[in-house]
Amino acid sequence: MKITISEASKHVGKEVTIGAWLANKRSSGKIAFLQLRDGSGFIQGVVVKAEVGEDIFKKAKALTQESSLYVTGTVQEDERSPFGYELTVTDVEVIHEAVDYPITPKEHGTEFLMDNRHLWLRSKRQHAVMKVRNEIIRATYEFFNHNGFTKVDPPILTGSAPEGTTELFHTKYFDEDAFLSQSGQLYMEAAAMALGKVFSFGPTFRAEKSKTRRHLIEFWMIEPEMAFYQFEDSLKVQEEYVSYVVQSVLENCKLELNVLGRDTSKLEQIKAPFPRITYDDALKFLHEKGFDDIQWGDDFGSPHETAIAESYDKPVFITHYPTSLKPFYMQPDPTNADVVLCADLIAPEGYGEIIGGSERIHDQELLAQRVAEHELDTETYKWYLELRKYGSVPHSGFGLGLERTVAWISGVEHVRETIPFPRLLNRLYP
Amino acid sequence: MKITISEASKHVGKEVTIGAWLANKRSSGKIAFLQLRDGSGFIQGVVVKAEVGEDIFKKAKALTQESSLYVTGTVQEDERSPFGYELTVTDVEVIHEAVDYPITPKEHGTEFLMDNRHLWLRSKRQHAVMKVRNEIIRATYEFFNHNGFTKVDPPILTGSAPEGTTELFHTKYFDEDAFLSQSGQLYMEAAAMALGKVFSFGPTFRAEKSKTRRHLIEFWMIEPEMAFYQFEDSLKVQEEYVSYVVQSVLENCKLELNVLGRDTSKLEQIKAPFPRITYDDALKFLHEKGFDDIQWGDDFGSPHETAIAESYDKPVFITHYPTSLKPFYMQPDPTNADVVLCADLIAPEGYGEIIGGSERIHDQELLAQRVAEHELDTETYKWYLELRKYGSVPHSGFGLGLERTVAWISGVEHVRETIPFPRLLNRLYP
Ligand SMILES: [Mg+2]
Ligand SMILES: [Mg+2]
Repeated sequence: MKITISEASKHVGKEVTIGAWLANKRSSGKIAFLQLRDGSGFIQGVVVKAEVGEDIFKKAKALTQESSLYVTGTVQEDERSPFGYELTVTDVEVIHEAVDYPITPKEHGTEFLMDNRHLWLRSKRQHAVMKVRNEIIRATYEFFNHNGFTKVDPPILTGSAPEGTTELFHTKYFDEDAFLSQSGQLYMEAAAMALGKVFSFGPTFRAEKSKTRRHLIEFWMIEPEMAFYQFEDSLKVQEEYVSYVVQSVLENCKLELNVLGRDTSKLEQIKAPFPRITYDDALKFLHEKGFDDIQWGDDFGSPHETAIAESYDKPVFITHYPTSLKPFYMQPDPTNADVVLCADLIAPEGYGEIIGGSERIHDQELLAQRVAEHELDTETYKWYLELRKYGSVPHSGFGLGLERTVAWISGVEHVRETIPFPRLLNRLYP
Repeated sequence: MKITISEASKHVGKEVTIGAWLANKRSSGKIAFLQLRDGSGFIQGVVVKAEVGEDIFKKAKALTQESSLYVTGTVQEDERSPFGYELTVTDVEVIHEAVDYPITPKEHGTEFLMDNRHLWLRSKRQHAVMKVRNEIIRATYEFFNHNGFTKVDPPILTGSAPEGTTELFHTKYFDEDAFLSQSGQLYMEAAAMALGKVFSFGPTFRAEKSKTRRHLIEFWMIEPEMAFYQFEDSLKVQEEYVSYVVQSVLENCKLELNVLGRDTSKLEQIKAPFPRITYDDALKFLHEKGFDDIQWGDDFGSPHETAIAESYDKPVFITHYPTSLKPFYMQPDPTNADVVLCADLIAPEGYGEIIGGSERIHDQELLAQRVAEHELDTETYKWYLELRKYGSVPHSGFGLGLERTVAWISGVEHVRETIPFPRLLNRLYP
């Protein structure tokens, strides 16, 4: 019977055949241990010369790294294996022999691995990160589906942009000019007026010349938007959503977190509610910590965010930023027009901002005034302004950056390992 | 208690408050019927003057279309309503009064509605299509998650393209040239070698100057790819997947299909297995039907596909197309090298091709030969060729076009109604 490695637990004591690749092997004169992978998981195949005979044993011993094969054998429980099962091999059929696979168990430089990303994905660690990413996506859909959200796909090609036209990729759209979306938020606001609670999940693009461990040129965002939700309502959704995702990964990716060496005790604490600190209090805290490079009205940089996050064992909301630091559409605080009803969510352990969100301005006149102040083109924003003309309602939303979230939950240092084919400043291949 | 309309069934006999918009109303001197919508659903609010008093009744009667309001009332079961519930209104609080909402219950021209897409989405029919789209997406994730697939997001910005560089959107990627992806397939093949069974769901772009009811410039595709799966294995996944999606919509979108006037008896028949016909037999059939404009080696157009589909009450696979008609990576039929192991899946009722798929060439030499024959750049395809160098395995995959599938299942004529913000030949706004 043909099975995948992940199905092994259902076939203990049975003879099965698995299509797989040889990840690694070791052998003596009498026994060979094959580390097999098939994408669904990893399992050890044990080939005993006395049992399989000279020919099959020879074939198994000669297998090269990443050769593809059909392996037949009996599934055994095995307490010593992290996976819990192994395969007593009875037959090996080589599909294709790999010669000189470039990624060996030794150390390789980053650029070399990135040039070979199409192969690097096969390694145990990259496989684990992709599985964690998959689980975060799965849990995201589950959370929003269960909570009455409709998935909405905002357009990628747009004539407009939420925060001005810097750092946008440009293309000709037949005779017009078009830009690749940096955020679907404005469209999600229109969708929320039609569908109530909506969420998007799609690629966004930023032509930014930064080269940090937190930046990708092409990255995926989840952008929920909720009609009739005010600032505090939105914070609740955010902390429940992030908690749900972390707890789902803990439950469904035990093997992967183990491969990644992730300290899961840190993740177990990630449960709503999350702490909140205002921009003003955060600034006071930073000054006390000796950061005298920053004053009221300045944005926080990575070192500031990290210093603040270190005081908490959960993600922390920094709220009520100065209006001047934030985009035009954010709702002012009714008690202090110098700040807006917004929050950034900063992940623990130095992983930085994973969410930015706010209540949106729903007053037609105030929004028109902001559009004018920011010198935005009123023709381009005509439809957006009309959302406030016909049955405007209070509403809020946020955007979560998928790759930074994967980095944090997986415990990987650089976002380039959190997306299958990263696009970086000088990286468009493979 | 604040609830959404979709939660009404859990609050029968209770007083609730709903944030909503007025979709429509009718009234006499003593009673007003408010058609309310909140995105989660539609419900009728009944305002009886004798019960609410003069002031509230006057407020309710004066409500304009698409004004936003908080409505308080008691949930009642109501057998006459398609939704099953109505609201006996006790109070109305206007949030924002809409003046001269442009989309009235009368007929409007398509261009006008498209210019007002941000508002048009609020109408009952568009709302229903978006809910069907959402259910197809939800069921897609559920199907592939349950069947051991990992979600993989291939890059949008690429230096290469699966089928040549015609009809591609171009952008500058810093100093390099980049193109917007028409298909993530090649990347999904790399991912399948790492993760076994994978699926993508993301936007794809075709700068095609066609203006038909089946074409969008920006559309969403689901592209599964499966290691160790041969042609027939892939057909099985396709028919099971499509059946699963259709049955999920039937089960979870009853109200929406009713709003759309969809003949659900036609959808109930959509269960695996699906019929299959070879290109050769399809050609014979077309000749018998009097299509003498087509001969062996020609591609089928919409009229041909529709004629073939009319013979079946399920989607039909057209298999084994001439090699010359198909992309370079398709596996030749071992019994006849003039045709390839591919299939297009044609939806019933004239909705056209919804899936294209094939077994992929896994032989390194044959693939290199095809790359040369098609005069493709070997540097660009270096990584793709390497998938056949290191442990190549038989594998297959397919791509389903989301919007055509939404059109078919919803029974809407034109794909422009199947995506929130359609991008068409002369349409980049809103
Ligand atoms: Mg920030
Ligand atoms: Mg076709």
